[in-house]
Amino acid sequence: MVKAKVKVGLAGYGVIGKRVADAVALQDDMELFGIAEVSADYRIRAAIRKKYPIYASLPEKAEEMKKNGVELAGNLQDLLKEVDVMIDCTPAGVGAKNKPLYEKNGVKAIFQGGEKHSLVQASFVAQCNYEEALGKDFVRVVSCNTTGLCRVISALHNSFKVKKARVALMRRAVDPWESHLGGVINTVLPETHVPSHQGPDAQTILHDLNIVAMAAKGPFNLSHLHFAMIEINKDATTDDAIKAFMENPRTILVNASNGIAAPNSVIEFVRDLGRPRGDLWEVAVWGDILTVDQKEKEVYIVYQVHNEAIVVPENIDAVRAMTGLEENATKSISKTDKSLGIMHGAVS
Amino acid sequence: MVKAKVKVGLAGYGVIGKRVADAVALQDDMELFGIAEVSADYRIRAAIRKKYPIYASLPEKAEEMKKNGVELAGNLQDLLKEVDVMIDCTPAGVGAKNKPLYEKNGVKAIFQGGEKHSLVQASFVAQCNYEEALGKDFVRVVSCNTTGLCRVISALHNSFKVKKARVALMRRAVDPWESHLGGVINTVLPETHVPSHQGPDAQTILHDLNIVAMAAKGPFNLSHLHFAMIEINKDATTDDAIKAFMENPRTILVNASNGIAAPNSVIEFVRDLGRPRGDLWEVAVWGDILTVDQKEKEVYIVYQVHNEAIVVPENIDAVRAMTGLEENATKSISKTDKSLGIMHGAVS
Amino acid sequence: MVKAKVKVGLAGYGVIGKRVADAVALQDDMELFGIAEVSADYRIRAAIRKKYPIYASLPEKAEEMKKNGVELAGNLQDLLKEVDVMIDCTPAGVGAKNKPLYEKNGVKAIFQGGEKHSLVQASFVAQCNYEEALGKDFVRVVSCNTTGLCRVISALHNSFKVKKARVALMRRAVDPWESHLGGVINTVLPETHVPSHQGPDAQTILHDLNIVAMAAKGPFNLSHLHFAMIEINKDATTDDAIKAFMENPRTILVNASNGIAAPNSVIEFVRDLGRPRGDLWEVAVWGDILTVDQKEKEVYIVYQVHNEAIVVPENIDAVRAMTGLEENATKSISKTDKSLGIMHGAVS
Amino acid sequence: MVKAKVKVGLAGYGVIGKRVADAVALQDDMELFGIAEVSADYRIRAAIRKKYPIYASLPEKAEEMKKNGVELAGNLQDLLKEVDVMIDCTPAGVGAKNKPLYEKNGVKAIFQGGEKHSLVQASFVAQCNYEEALGKDFVRVVSCNTTGLCRVISALHNSFKVKKARVALMRRAVDPWESHLGGVINTVLPETHVPSHQGPDAQTILHDLNIVAMAAKGPFNLSHLHFAMIEINKDATTDDAIKAFMENPRTILVNASNGIAAPNSVIEFVRDLGRPRGDLWEVAVWGDILTVDQKEKEVYIVYQVHNEAIVVPENIDAVRAMTGLEENATKSISKTDKSLGIMHGAVS
Repeated sequence: MVKAKVKVGLAGYGVIGKRVADAVALQDDMELFGIAEVSADYRIRAAIRKKYPIYASLPEKAEEMKKNGVELAGNLQDLLKEVDVMIDCTPAGVGAKNKPLYEKNGVKAIFQGGEKHSLVQASFVAQCNYEEALGKDFVRVVSCNTTGLCRVISALHNSFKVKKARVALMRRAVDPWESHLGGVINTVLPETHVPSHQGPDAQTILHDLNIVAMAAKGPFNLSHLHFAMIEINKDATTDDAIKAFMENPRTILVNASNGIAAPNSVIEFVRDLGRPRGDLWEVAVWGDILTVDQKEKEVYIVYQVHNEAIVVPENIDAVRAMTGLEENATKSISKTDKSLGIMHGAVS
Repeated sequence: MVKAKVKVGLAGYGVIGKRVADAVALQDDMELFGIAEVSADYRIRAAIRKKYPIYASLPEKAEEMKKNGVELAGNLQDLLKEVDVMIDCTPAGVGAKNKPLYEKNGVKAIFQGGEKHSLVQASFVAQCNYEEALGKDFVRVVSCNTTGLCRVISALHNSFKVKKARVALMRRAVDPWESHLGGVINTVLPETHVPSHQGPDAQTILHDLNIVAMAAKGPFNLSHLHFAMIEINKDATTDDAIKAFMENPRTILVNASNGIAAPNSVIEFVRDLGRPRGDLWEVAVWGDILTVDQKEKEVYIVYQVHNEAIVVPENIDAVRAMTGLEENATKSISKTDKSLGIMHGAVS
Repeated sequence: MVKAKVKVGLAGYGVIGKRVADAVALQDDMELFGIAEVSADYRIRAAIRKKYPIYASLPEKAEEMKKNGVELAGNLQDLLKEVDVMIDCTPAGVGAKNKPLYEKNGVKAIFQGGEKHSLVQASFVAQCNYEEALGKDFVRVVSCNTTGLCRVISALHNSFKVKKARVALMRRAVDPWESHLGGVINTVLPETHVPSHQGPDAQTILHDLNIVAMAAKGPFNLSHLHFAMIEINKDATTDDAIKAFMENPRTILVNASNGIAAPNSVIEFVRDLGRPRGDLWEVAVWGDILTVDQKEKEVYIVYQVHNEAIVVPENIDAVRAMTGLEENATKSISKTDKSLGIMHGAVS
Repeated sequence: MVKAKVKVGLAGYGVIGKRVADAVALQDDMELFGIAEVSADYRIRAAIRKKYPIYASLPEKAEEMKKNGVELAGNLQDLLKEVDVMIDCTPAGVGAKNKPLYEKNGVKAIFQGGEKHSLVQASFVAQCNYEEALGKDFVRVVSCNTTGLCRVISALHNSFKVKKARVALMRRAVDPWESHLGGVINTVLPETHVPSHQGPDAQTILHDLNIVAMAAKGPFNLSHLHFAMIEINKDATTDDAIKAFMENPRTILVNASNGIAAPNSVIEFVRDLGRPRGDLWEVAVWGDILTVDQKEKEVYIVYQVHNEAIVVPENIDAVRAMTGLEENATKSISKTDKSLGIMHGAVS
């Protein structure tokens, strides 16, 4: 018997939403049923060129959307009647407002990192706690920075038991598409709240770990870059730590000695590989920067988190876990990774 | 009778070379026979993942390349024995050094804008002077800025006869891949030579036109942006000028009113369309900025020149013109455009 | 008989206001009577360290200001009772709201470039139309870009009669103090209105001249940079044009050959001279970029407009013209220039 | 008896040298005898406007300097005959080459952080180890980042005994004057060596402390910004840590709640105070970001190190310690601070 495809709806065709839409469309066990949006700008025009069915998130905006040339398949309510699960990629806080609508229509929903942990039954990073999302109705894929923290810290924790992780996060100020509207020039803006929220947020996934983060945003839009100093409980060499990342899903190793010296080189590499939008779904860990101080039992590591792309595979896996398409984390991760072309190990 | 494919070799797998390689590989009347390079860094590693045959540009570097994991199909000399035409995308000045080698081996060659006009039999912008390259042995595809100038000014000249074009070019300081190695921070560096070289360079294509340019480079790596004030000899309205660009090859119209307010929005749009590397092969002209002062007979226009990508289609057309694959400019342009997905008219 | 000092009040201690306050305090024929403000942040704290009397612009904010440690000399109404002239440096549009208050209190007022020409009896650039402000009650010092345009174009017009001036203005996106709050990253945002408002605005000063401008803002906060192509009616050489700027007030000549290659070098130079805040009150014209095409009768010129500082001396001169302290433009300009240390001619 | 002024010569009128020259000129117990330089660009022209005597560092360059309008008081050799101490602010590595010359002439010398610790008898941060420099012939003022680390870590160590300091240093890519010549655009370049050299360098001053640093440079030229996580051995509250910095020399407290949210705000504040070149000689510590985790005994702190200016007072104090002008650290620091206007405690 052929299993029916899971019907996926998507709300919010922004930076995350449009990437998740493309990723859903690539899966052989899912169908991208439609996209709910409110705007009619150049981004939704690109979706139309891809033949994605568009639904009006707000009925009162439907007329304006049509007037601006967006052919509509219906309203959000129509979409909700058809789909098994919604991936809500609307701006922070809108997801919380949408949740009752999903509940009323008996539709499962995945939210993004802008929503609160308390909104859902489980926060989610596929390689860390896939099983927590099994069969759940409401799951939150955590933010890009938190996803990066979780992948990296869990890789070390699995091998060496993490004692305390300290991380300085240098965040991109805005995304590329909005960089003419705002940003930061010639300065760095530190977050006033220390430790910053990413530490506690990572603890919604890695429940007992001691993680503190300090954050700032700088005058770039390319990616986040983390500088982590991680105390471990077991003896380890630099090679041991490299091995941990080699074997870990969704972390790749890059090397400055091969010319990949900074986040822009990593992005150039994935552009050269032909990836859509130059997306980096993996955490890129610098292999020849990573250092373990054996005496101090501390790992020093620099890694890149591509804020636009890193959570895309997590959303796909969350669909599988919640809908019962796949109960095994490794199998889902592997299927997702194959569909997107996610790399493993030392890539350059 | 099936025409044999033209065998194309490529020297220099940098910003332009790697894009031209991919474009050659897409053509049904060409074969990408191999790539001559000297380095073994992450960029050539991406080429290996694409199964492109690699040749050592310098035999003395062959050992080092092999040691760094680059499997070689031979040396440049071996490549030259097999190909009909070389596309030389090496750094400025290297092409001139390579030319005697191409001559000795009876191989036609296309050079890029870093080489001098005097090196070749014709400088080239497909839609302006395709016929000048017909059957030639040595042709130069002009630089990104000059290509942009030629496409835009010729579009107006064909319709309204250009009297004098004045252009201020805001250039990106460096390319994305090298942006950790150099650049410009929080300032703008004007060229000290006024008018800058792009005006005279455009005159190697548009022979009798009066074109002056002033140039500067700024703290961005995304694209060039031109601000042109173009006096014309015929009466024209803003709509007439829009129409000229609508009908012109390789210029597209974008609109700030659709959210495409700046070069980053245009790049976001082509990323969303799934283009490789987020490349913009067309000149993007802002339709809702373009203004014709009818009384003054002057056109004011802002357009974007994507330095990484704009000359890619020109290289393909140059191969066709030089090798006799196609004698008709319009047919070659159309074939190239279809293969890449180049757009026309108002796109958003 | 000793002339009484003119009592000057200032409203709005922002980027322009704080500089004008310091400049007023330097004049021997003026007294900085007090500053009206609404905020209590670090900027007003610096004013307090300078012992400037502070007045509450809005009585309802007085309590909050006091609570935050700002000792108040009174409210704006108290200030208005004492002063002869107010220099209104409040944000754009607030000046228009304040004008009735100034009228009611019989106080003359100077507004800045954010206000409309129609609000006042004369718009003002000291070296262009000092006499228009003589004895007037309401005068507007035009914006930084317009002031720069007027100084440069009038210098050429006085010597060679300008036929048409075309200028591309590369504007800084935000000021340094606010660069963590907004800006532009890795792109350039063109103004959608062409020609941009600076051309017509300059015509409020240079009444019959043909001036068109195109503008954009880029990812820097240091200064504006103008690229001008100016057609003239008389024969002139490059040396003639240099001479015009040598003899012109408030334009200085800098040279890339002396290491002053870009706006950051000019600012470094004035920092080295010990100027307050690294202010550049003059327009800096690049002497070794300036080129006259004799055949075309066209001047190509690049110059820097320091948006934070350029209008400071204009405000001082406007006080003199309006209050009758000095009826002669040259004398007022000379007095102001001496007080600030404004340079002339080729400075490096 | 009036003590004779110490005669100070200076070599290298760059970013540090020119600031130190001005600071020496302010001291009543020192005389700025002359400046040795090789260039004749706009920077040395500013020195001439200040009437500083100029000597040719290299006799063979003397002619060229004169030709470019630099009047010379002699060669470096002439200067060395007259002075008691040289402050060598030449580029990294040149100091080491100059040292034999100073030795031969019996002149004491101060080097900067670009030279190695092994070159000198003591590395130096006034408030940490003034006494180590007493009477010495060769002393090195450590780099800007190291000076910042030492001031901050010693403040905490003196009060709470530091167990381990972990610091992520976000460095400015280049200085403002050279920002048109190089830099970084839209990316962050991590140092490949971890821990970076600043940790061991700080240990040349704070001999037994456990300090590790990771560093990167970003697309800004304004200042360095440090994110420090410092384990301490004693119980302490956030208020205790604030107090430690209140009482510490050359660290000031700023507050985001007063509008000083980022390094650009701090620089705006000192510009507003009228400081030469907008220099920040103090380390600026954010008071309302600083947090002590009492349970973890760890201090989280963000502070700004103005790379152009921070070592200026250290150079002045080093002259006093080495020449016997003042044997007491506190007295020298106090005298220097008063001459420059260095602040203490919470400034805004």
